[in-house]
Amino acid sequence: MQTKPKLTLIKVGGKIVEESSLNQLLNDFSAIQGYKVLVHGGGRSATKLATQLGIETQMVDGRRITDAETLKVATMVYAGLVNKNIVAGLQAYGVNALGLTGADMDMIRSVKRPIKEIDYGFVGDVSKVDVSLLVPLIRKNMVPVIAPLTHDGKGNLLNTNADTIAGETAKALSIFFDVTLIYCFEKKGVLRDENNDNSIISQITRTDFEQYVAQGVIQGGMIPKLQNSFEAIEAGVSQVMITSATAIDGKGGTRIY
Amino acid sequence: MQTKPKLTLIKVGGKIVEESSLNQLLNDFSAIQGYKVLVHGGGRSATKLATQLGIETQMVDGRRITDAETLKVATMVYAGLVNKNIVAGLQAYGVNALGLTGADMDMIRSVKRPIKEIDYGFVGDVSKVDVSLLVPLIRKNMVPVIAPLTHDGKGNLLNTNADTIAGETAKALSIFFDVTLIYCFEKKGVLRDENNDNSIISQITRTDFEQYVAQGVIQGGMIPKLQNSFEAIEAGVSQVMITSATAIDGKGGTRIY
Repeated sequence: MQTKPKLTLIKVGGKIVEESSLNQLLNDFSAIQGYKVLVHGGGRSATKLATQLGIETQMVDGRRITDAETLKVATMVYAGLVNKNIVAGLQAYGVNALGLTGADMDMIRSVKRPIKEIDYGFVGDVSKVDVSLLVPLIRKNMVPVIAPLTHDGKGNLLNTNADTIAGETAKALSIFFDVTLIYCFEKKGVLRDENNDNSIISQITRTDFEQYVAQGVIQGGMIPKLQNSFEAIEAGVSQVMITSATAIDGKGGTRIY
Repeated sequence: MQTKPKLTLIKVGGKIVEESSLNQLLNDFSAIQGYKVLVHGGGRSATKLATQLGIETQMVDGRRITDAETLKVATMVYAGLVNKNIVAGLQAYGVNALGLTGADMDMIRSVKRPIKEIDYGFVGDVSKVDVSLLVPLIRKNMVPVIAPLTHDGKGNLLNTNADTIAGETAKALSIFFDVTLIYCFEKKGVLRDENNDNSIISQITRTDFEQYVAQGVIQGGMIPKLQNSFEAIEAGVSQVMITSATAIDGKGGTRIY
């Protein structure tokens, strides 16, 4: 069996890509050896711009409700401001970055989320990931920087959760690479006690996870993040880590089995 | 001598990429046979957003003065809103588009314009075009959609004239392809009488051009457009046309020799 080359896929949240911490991220990310991919959020800048434009931001369960105006703001901020500043910033570090949304190269298609109790608006659930054009670029040392937008194939962009994009992209790339997926967020890892930043659960299996959820130890936004992680592992991703943005190399944090 | 495959590079202005005329552009562009590239402006949407955000737009000789806030607006509108809506729109027409700025794949570097009489702000003059990663993508039938932003290699995005980007990209691609460069704008071509839309000069050489300029027949923004065109021809681009957006195939209009 041929050994697949290593690839690190880092997902960073909206807070980390703010101007104040962007440089640290660029520095840390550029230090990662080997093939790599960056998936970013951008929620806070989008909220700020929406406020400036007098557009109300509606959130339900930590998910943004995306009306037509909010989608425009998300497109401008995620695919424009945040994505291209990361790309230009990485170029200065000698990292040959390529900024993408799911619409580019028809990479990530999604389906507009059906209206049930909540109408999420222009939010897309991933339906198809095609990395066939991306893989040769990565092999030429291009570094994809992916914004959390997808498309429906009918001409519409859709807002898509960045954690999901990271998970789905990691899964698709795991056919070609030995993928480590690292979710970076505000905390140092999955916490046993949310009021104690050092109560990191160092490793977690699906059985552990189900027990923690039943016990109420793991709740809220961490549940979908871990579900994405287990799905990724089960689909062939070699390793998933949940850690803080200051430990982008995945050291410390929680390892998902 | 090996025959180079044909490639059509279309440059469309800011007015054409507005929501009202975007669909027509997508339809016309998708009908073009063979390899193709789209370069777009986005001036009007940027002006609109800047106004909404209370940022004053300063223009000198038809060129935007780009302060830090204006650069952010340009990045959001050109690379985000306009570029990604074109990309998603083309995907619906079966055109596998890839949205890019000059920062992506380190494709177009520029130097911040030196301050002489006018400080243009964050405006970049193209210094280096590298299409080595773009060419294999085009050969795989990817269609690059290029926004008028470049980078300085030091982490800064710079606003760059879309006509210049089109001309410079056409020149770089002419090593690999038999390139036709088509500038689409509001008029049907270069006009003998600016008050008569049908007074199209059907073909023009550099000698003609210099005479027309001396006579005052050709003036204003048409002068740099034609200078870009002659430079392109002299650098190996096979054909340059200046025509209206409703004749994206280059028929009618002015042919530059």
